[in-house]
Amino acid sequence: MIDHTHDIALKSWVESANGHPDFPIQNLPLGIFSAGDTPRPGVAIGDLILDLTAAKALFDLVPEGQTLNAFMALGKGPRQALRLRLVEILREGSPHRAVVETCLHKASDCILHLPFHIGDYTDFYVGIHHAQNVGALFRPDNPLLPNYRHLPIGYHGRASSVVASGVDVRRPHGQTKAPDSDTPVFGPSRRLDYELELGVWIGPGNDLGQPVDIYAAADQVAGFCLLNDWSARDIQAWEYQPLGPFLAKNFASTVSSWVITPEALMPFRVAQAAREADDPPPMPYLWSENDQAEGGLNLELEVSLLTAQMRAQGLPPHKLAQSNSRHMYWTVAQMIAHHTVGGCNLRPGDLLGTGTLSGPEAGMHGSLLEASHGGKVPVVLPTGETRTFLQDGDKVILRARGMRDGFASIGFGECRGKVVG
Amino acid sequence: MIDHTHDIALKSWVESANGHPDFPIQNLPLGIFSAGDTPRPGVAIGDLILDLTAAKALFDLVPEGQTLNAFMALGKGPRQALRLRLVEILREGSPHRAVVETCLHKASDCILHLPFHIGDYTDFYVGIHHAQNVGALFRPDNPLLPNYRHLPIGYHGRASSVVASGVDVRRPHGQTKAPDSDTPVFGPSRRLDYELELGVWIGPGNDLGQPVDIYAAADQVAGFCLLNDWSARDIQAWEYQPLGPFLAKNFASTVSSWVITPEALMPFRVAQAAREADDPPPMPYLWSENDQAEGGLNLELEVSLLTAQMRAQGLPPHKLAQSNSRHMYWTVAQMIAHHTVGGCNLRPGDLLGTGTLSGPEAGMHGSLLEASHGGKVPVVLPTGETRTFLQDGDKVILRARGMRDGFASIGFGECRGKVVG
Repeated sequence: MIDHTHDIALKSWVESANGHPDFPIQNLPLGIFSAGDTPRPGVAIGDLILDLTAAKALFDLVPEGQTLNAFMALGKGPRQALRLRLVEILREGSPHRAVVETCLHKASDCILHLPFHIGDYTDFYVGIHHAQNVGALFRPDNPLLPNYRHLPIGYHGRASSVVASGVDVRRPHGQTKAPDSDTPVFGPSRRLDYELELGVWIGPGNDLGQPVDIYAAADQVAGFCLLNDWSARDIQAWEYQPLGPFLAKNFASTVSSWVITPEALMPFRVAQAAREADDPPPMPYLWSENDQAEGGLNLELEVSLLTAQMRAQGLPPHKLAQSNSRHMYWTVAQMIAHHTVGGCNLRPGDLLGTGTLSGPEAGMHGSLLEASHGGKVPVVLPTGETRTFLQDGDKVILRARGMRDGFASIGFGECRGKVVG
Repeated sequence: MIDHTHDIALKSWVESANGHPDFPIQNLPLGIFSAGDTPRPGVAIGDLILDLTAAKALFDLVPEGQTLNAFMALGKGPRQALRLRLVEILREGSPHRAVVETCLHKASDCILHLPFHIGDYTDFYVGIHHAQNVGALFRPDNPLLPNYRHLPIGYHGRASSVVASGVDVRRPHGQTKAPDSDTPVFGPSRRLDYELELGVWIGPGNDLGQPVDIYAAADQVAGFCLLNDWSARDIQAWEYQPLGPFLAKNFASTVSSWVITPEALMPFRVAQAAREADDPPPMPYLWSENDQAEGGLNLELEVSLLTAQMRAQGLPPHKLAQSNSRHMYWTVAQMIAHHTVGGCNLRPGDLLGTGTLSGPEAGMHGSLLEASHGGKVPVVLPTGETRTFLQDGDKVILRARGMRDGFASIGFGECRGKVVG
């Protein structure tokens, strides 16, 4: 429900928040930060971070500890109450300004940490254009497998190697086999790639054996982030039969550090639009009228690259692709209902990835595998450098932003990681 | 190294330990138990459990808290010191008997819990006969894929739904599609199966980006358990392309509750023997002379079934299959070296499964899928009942035991679970 907290006329006495592309007073994302001391919960407002522990006396309930797990386990009630109170104390004219000013840090002086202890990480495959593009590289006549339009395909990822934005990513070594060779070789991956995804943080969770109904699924969402599911395509091609990706993906996955709440994203909810008229209807456990009407998300997604040479020349990151989260064939609620329908339990702080969210055209590819047509067509950069896959020193930056006429823009901040050898 | 703690002549003043098929003084497995109160660390000795918290004053260091994670993170030193001290205080003639007697509980009065908080659960596929049997059902001419003999195939499982022995397992509902139908249907799985596996608990773990060398891999092992990786074959067949098993496996995995230490299993170490002469040699990161010489395990494995009708008639569980952990094509050290070679980090309490450990002949199948030849040949039980797959009310019991002339037998206790509708 869109309420006064989304009003574009709402201003903050934190000057940098007004017109901020990511963190205006209409966003108020939660995270875990530190300023040379103990990691603790905070809220982004403009170029500053509000220390919730220091400002605790102003609230009925704030997150405590070094993760958001316990607070988000309480569900939407406390989260929404926190948002309303944050708007009260941060809006222009608030009588609390003097107190709150003592609880602010410059974001540029702080480190952001993983916002949750992640129990399990699951990655889906709901970006239909990515599934078609990748499928076409392997099966030109039949890119989408028969199950794709009946259920949200997903698999279990590795929780231990999920890292916060800014952590360097080491190029993995592993076994690869050239198509024209009989035997594999060992060495560094030569086809290292990024994947542009949205991440979903789970709030309350469900008990083992108790599926989450599609009508209740949205209430499981604590918030959203960006997710770069780094992938070693050459390792993947050799290892993935018959049980799926393993070492090709478990060396690192990077998430953006701010948790963008469902409340902040309300203005960007749209009808689920990726299903076509003659597609099979979703089974009842995957269908609710409300979810079809507003379970989609209209967020601009972007991936940029900054090479070592570009940095040396003082060039800015180069935009490789722009896409949108409307290209999800299955909604977040459908992902949750499907994940739990057999009884699997989700726990607070679990992470779900959408899978790569590519658009239907050139310039909208969420991975280099797609942009380079399987490594055949190099991407040309402003320096004249070319890439089919990532080189050491390359920094990949993902961004997401909700933009809608009459509303403030709501950004996710950066999800960035540099490849090191 | 085999030392005096393995001496078959060693007796305990706990009478039930002497000649106990699972828990003689030569075993001394660790676990988390409760007796109507707070879960805490204990040691199985015969029919009793030693409360390590109550007996703490007798030790330099004991596990504390409600999991073994922190203690096992310390590595083999503290674990081996604990074993030596346990033998001192529990052996016949120990001067500590009077004190220790006040710290014992009847195991039958206690509940056993999960011994670890599990960060991540990975399941491998190293049982070569299982891989061949299952492969043959899908690809009669080419049961083993080309990568199988080059690397230990594995995938990420679900940590949240790993349960302790004794917890009922709810039959999952999900999408399935009959081979002769164009569209899937929704309902309870009709092809519910067990999988007979060994589980490996990780001790110290490694940092992200720092692979575990094959020579150091054995030191990562905190202990062993049995693992039943329950599988819904019909859900699996429809969902698993292209990213592997998901809902078919994530509704429950059962582990036996006692952690059998590497020290207790020393007498049952054998040469790695499942590789044949003309198989490809393991790559250097998977090969150490020591691991080839004694990285194998000679443990008898067994799966039994107790149906509701058998229980009603007072019949004992019926042995469905007997196998052995020698049928692992890759050793535990090779699994660990491979898992981390790309930089993936393991954490204390992580669980690795071996995959189903079937033997080469009939009567040695670690799953009903194999025993019933893909559901075509029913297994006949003593009651005259038949099974292709599991029915509601069926209780599946896994056991493992090391047996060797001149040594005490070392058992794992039960890994049991009952299917409920």
